[in-house]
Amino acid sequence: MENTLVPLDEDIPQVLQPYLPPSRDTAWVTLTYAQSMDARISAAPGERTVISHAQTKTMTHYIRTKHDAILVGINTILADNPSLNCRYEEQEGGDRKKHGIRPVIIDPTFKFKQCILESKLIGNYKSGRGLKPVIIVSSKATSTESTYDIEIIKIEPQDGILPWEAILSELKNISLNSIMIEGGAHVINTLLNKPELVDSLIVTVGPVYLGSKGVSVSPPVAVTLRNVRWWTGIQDSVLCATLK
Amino acid sequence: MENTLVPLDEDIPQVLQPYLPPSRDTAWVTLTYAQSMDARISAAPGERTVISHAQTKTMTHYIRTKHDAILVGINTILADNPSLNCRYEEQEGGDRKKHGIRPVIIDPTFKFKQCILESKLIGNYKSGRGLKPVIIVSSKATSTESTYDIEIIKIEPQDGILPWEAILSELKNISLNSIMIEGGAHVINTLLNKPELVDSLIVTVGPVYLGSKGVSVSPPVAVTLRNVRWWTGIQDSVLCATLK
Repeated sequence: MENTLVPLDEDIPQVLQPYLPPSRDTAWVTLTYAQSMDARISAAPGERTVISHAQTKTMTHYIRTKHDAILVGINTILADNPSLNCRYEEQEGGDRKKHGIRPVIIDPTFKFKQCILESKLIGNYKSGRGLKPVIIVSSKATSTESTYDIEIIKIEPQDGILPWEAILSELKNISLNSIMIEGGAHVINTLLNKPELVDSLIVTVGPVYLGSKGVSVSPPVAVTLRNVRWWTGIQDSVLCATLK
Repeated sequence: MENTLVPLDEDIPQVLQPYLPPSRDTAWVTLTYAQSMDARISAAPGERTVISHAQTKTMTHYIRTKHDAILVGINTILADNPSLNCRYEEQEGGDRKKHGIRPVIIDPTFKFKQCILESKLIGNYKSGRGLKPVIIVSSKATSTESTYDIEIIKIEPQDGILPWEAILSELKNISLNSIMIEGGAHVINTLLNKPELVDSLIVTVGPVYLGSKGVSVSPPVAVTLRNVRWWTGIQDSVLCATLK
């Protein structure tokens, strides 16, 4: 068949843009975590600490059903060995619908290798209770070979760190369009000061003080929040907001 | 008239105790402050920072109507020069009822002397818009003489600090039976780890991050909260709780 298309009129893209699905280069980012009154996410470095009520933990799994991936830093994996799957099942008619979510780990020097055997992520993936983990490593990392069936993405470091823009862009390239970023403190503090990359923020505040030896969430620079809503449960208060 | 009283039966006090008004040696303490999401009460040391909405600021003045005194540390006075009076007026029939509240300053070395001329506390007291300030000093403080009409209470330091038990007991001795303690960070952090002295805790959380250079509230040791209730306003979430 003859191609009857003519060159696109120059002004068409600009006129149509507000009527078309949003196009973006990076994945949608929801930043979410649970903290104490004194803004600590654990009682001490490397110590797993329960802060939120079962009700808000369930909420977290509900939020996971709305995302393609969960992202955490390697230190969270080493400290908590989390499952990072989605245990909330939505009802569809008479059926319960399981939601698969990809675990993504920011791990510049590939420390995941050390704990791969005991990792719940790997266990879940092998037994069908989780999707294949994605490990984000530095392109400068040595020995990223692994006999395990994991996906490794190499990112070029800039000034010694992996740029978030590149990470979120690479995740979008493998069709992970919405990322729930859950910690730890370093990841959260860095992203709170990158409002242009964060689409929404959901913070559970538990009524406890973990004390000054705990791991603190506080970004280097002040952040103003917008579109604020609070929800209050049996025990916790939940902030929903945007950063831009 | 002849005194017809006989010696009190020994077991009477214990039997009656649950049916009598509570008797206590120290004043009732309500600990209250406003913080950012990252548990900062100001953006930098000595910098006055607005965190709470007008709605929760009004709430604070309502809470003041329920107390005999407001207590702060001297650094809060030096940083903020606060009025520490009660500007909320309750309606009683057709009348508005003003509530007088005594300002109390913890000031071991009597630094208040430095700022007494510019002090809003003194200005308010002179013009009838505030009650006479009470200054708590160390019994070791030199030069506590003042030509101003303020009340000075001397407390014996123990290991270099003024014991809260003695402060609250002395305040009760001058009929200040209920104290609202509003800051700053040092006062709050110390009292959070003295649950036996704190009757209730009311914390406003504003939807902002002040950043890691801000003044942090986090007690040295973890604290569990009880009887938790949250109230949510237009902008802020308010935690009400007890520490015991």
